[in-house]
Amino acid sequence: MPHAPSAALAARHRRLRAALDAEGLSALVVTALPNIAYLTNFAGSSAMLVFTHDRLHFVTDSRYATAVDDAQREPWASPELAVSVVAGSYDAALAELLKREANGRVGIEAEHLTVARFRWLEAELTGSAVALVDTAKLVEQGRLIKDDYEIGILREGGRRLSDVARRVLAEVRGGLTERNLGFTIDRLIREGGFTRTAFDTIVASGPNAALPHARPTERTLGEGDLVVLDFGGVYDSYCVDLTRTVCVGRASDRSREVHGAVLQAHDLAVAAVAPGVSRFAVDAAARDWLAKAGMGDAFGHGTGHGLGLEIHEDPRVTRWRQDIDVRREHLETGMVFTIEPGAYFPAWGGVRIEDDVLVTATGVEVLTEVTTELLETD
Amino acid sequence: MPHAPSAALAARHRRLRAALDAEGLSALVVTALPNIAYLTNFAGSSAMLVFTHDRLHFVTDSRYATAVDDAQREPWASPELAVSVVAGSYDAALAELLKREANGRVGIEAEHLTVARFRWLEAELTGSAVALVDTAKLVEQGRLIKDDYEIGILREGGRRLSDVARRVLAEVRGGLTERNLGFTIDRLIREGGFTRTAFDTIVASGPNAALPHARPTERTLGEGDLVVLDFGGVYDSYCVDLTRTVCVGRASDRSREVHGAVLQAHDLAVAAVAPGVSRFAVDAAARDWLAKAGMGDAFGHGTGHGLGLEIHEDPRVTRWRQDIDVRREHLETGMVFTIEPGAYFPAWGGVRIEDDVLVTATGVEVLTEVTTELLETD
Repeated sequence: MPHAPSAALAARHRRLRAALDAEGLSALVVTALPNIAYLTNFAGSSAMLVFTHDRLHFVTDSRYATAVDDAQREPWASPELAVSVVAGSYDAALAELLKREANGRVGIEAEHLTVARFRWLEAELTGSAVALVDTAKLVEQGRLIKDDYEIGILREGGRRLSDVARRVLAEVRGGLTERNLGFTIDRLIREGGFTRTAFDTIVASGPNAALPHARPTERTLGEGDLVVLDFGGVYDSYCVDLTRTVCVGRASDRSREVHGAVLQAHDLAVAAVAPGVSRFAVDAAARDWLAKAGMGDAFGHGTGHGLGLEIHEDPRVTRWRQDIDVRREHLETGMVFTIEPGAYFPAWGGVRIEDDVLVTATGVEVLTEVTTELLETD
Repeated sequence: MPHAPSAALAARHRRLRAALDAEGLSALVVTALPNIAYLTNFAGSSAMLVFTHDRLHFVTDSRYATAVDDAQREPWASPELAVSVVAGSYDAALAELLKREANGRVGIEAEHLTVARFRWLEAELTGSAVALVDTAKLVEQGRLIKDDYEIGILREGGRRLSDVARRVLAEVRGGLTERNLGFTIDRLIREGGFTRTAFDTIVASGPNAALPHARPTERTLGEGDLVVLDFGGVYDSYCVDLTRTVCVGRASDRSREVHGAVLQAHDLAVAAVAPGVSRFAVDAAARDWLAKAGMGDAFGHGTGHGLGLEIHEDPRVTRWRQDIDVRREHLETGMVFTIEPGAYFPAWGGVRIEDDVLVTATGVEVLTEVTTELLETD
């Protein structure tokens, strides 16, 4: 679980209350677990929160009740938490709570609540003083800007993941299978002090490296293979993420060329990061370079994604498109995200290089630090 | 990814088409990833499916396109798959697809689709020939009864997890921290041929064992501690799950008493499993015994949950309550679920014993096989 100090939680609550005011809401039903973790430090798998102007009505079940009570005696206790332990259904408990504690316009998280739960709740509240209103990203817009506690955790996570990466790079050699190298990476992540891997580790060698989301196979790493190693860890509930591409033995000229182009795209995108810069411009910094190198079609995904309580969150550093969410276009101090351009060629292979960055008042701080040169194993 | 043979997929499709007919639907929009995996063997993190009477319109993005094409040349190819690769937004691609390929009543998975996506889609389809209709569990009702392919995988997963458990039990000793023992368990799961752990491994010792969902801490295992070890693995996309409770050194009389009562509850629940038996009766077999032993209040959770592409799925083997889903009350051949009664005493500790079972034509097959006696470490 996260351990944001009570004062940090109180500041998050104040920001969320301001957002409720702006939307004319008396309360928000928070059902997305990462949002609940952000507001309360609770990191279990079942809970709901009714966030009002003076209380956090927190609903969980008996499996978590003791842990929540214990946390309330710690320096990371959540202010104004009123805990209800449900015996039966969460939805029934929520409906009761809303009838008792809320009235007027009550927000739901429309991007998280399912249609079925919404319809049930709406039917249950018919005739009550509560009117449910769709909302989007009310909590997430707070999570977008990391506070000092979060920056401290992400910085430490980045430092630890870099240590892991150095140990990983020393392990790569011909003759290993992707799967076995993946196991080693996962072990090193655990040994590095992470609670768990942040996603399924990617070890993609030779032609497999042409798949950006490859799963490790029984393929054996062989001479001349490029190997994409993409892995991450969860440190005190926060996710960090790193990719390096290594060559087994001697790299071909083509491998050097592709790696060099991706590295330059990576460096240009990192250098573009600063408060006030459009996130689409950061993407373009990488993308335009790869296009100029004749690899525009080889880079099919976005340049980066936000990091925090989730491995993929806002901001999205992508190409501008008509149909995407263009709110919060400009980078702000305290945003944390990945920069991870790549180039993929079916049947040949691919390269991706990824670091995690923090937007600072003056520009950018790179949270991960390990060589980006093309390593060739002995 | 799962590798259900094409013929098995075709049978699943036939059953789903019959369900569509029964609901008067021309198509179903499948957005839940485990349901997509069940129907197509696709196990990536982004896809949508429009399932009609003669086609599976499968939408994914460029990251997965090659992998899907490759799979279509294998014995586990999905019949009638028509692949669209989205360049922009999935929702926009879905709306286009529905306008082009569907008409009349089209089901959505109301228990999975979010309110925001539903509203967007509904607005987008205004004036089209498509009317969206809420549905519940149309695919899940197929997943509830495992087919021969799935039973084979789950049986092998149970066998492998039992091997892992025997190695885990041999590792428990005083002086280890919960966290380090957890790492060892995770390593053994990987070495046992599992893709990953099925959930965060639980190692809960001494008073921590009173929390059914404890996370491993830095606590050191000491003399007389009961230690709950709850772990699982994903084998070829299917989840298996096992718990044993071990004593470090000599068990106290009270530890023996609690363990004995939970073991008897476990054995009674397993023995109650057979086709036609109410799942509430299986729960009652465990619960009534614990109540008789004076431990009724110490058993706060359900007796078991279904296993398959998800670690928690139907059937739920729980206490009957007015507000729960009582459909499919009676066990059927081919259902697979856990039996995991426990007893928890705040500040003292707890015991849980869990196995995975398959309902067979004649009764029950236990898929996990490792001693349930109370082990005492040297």
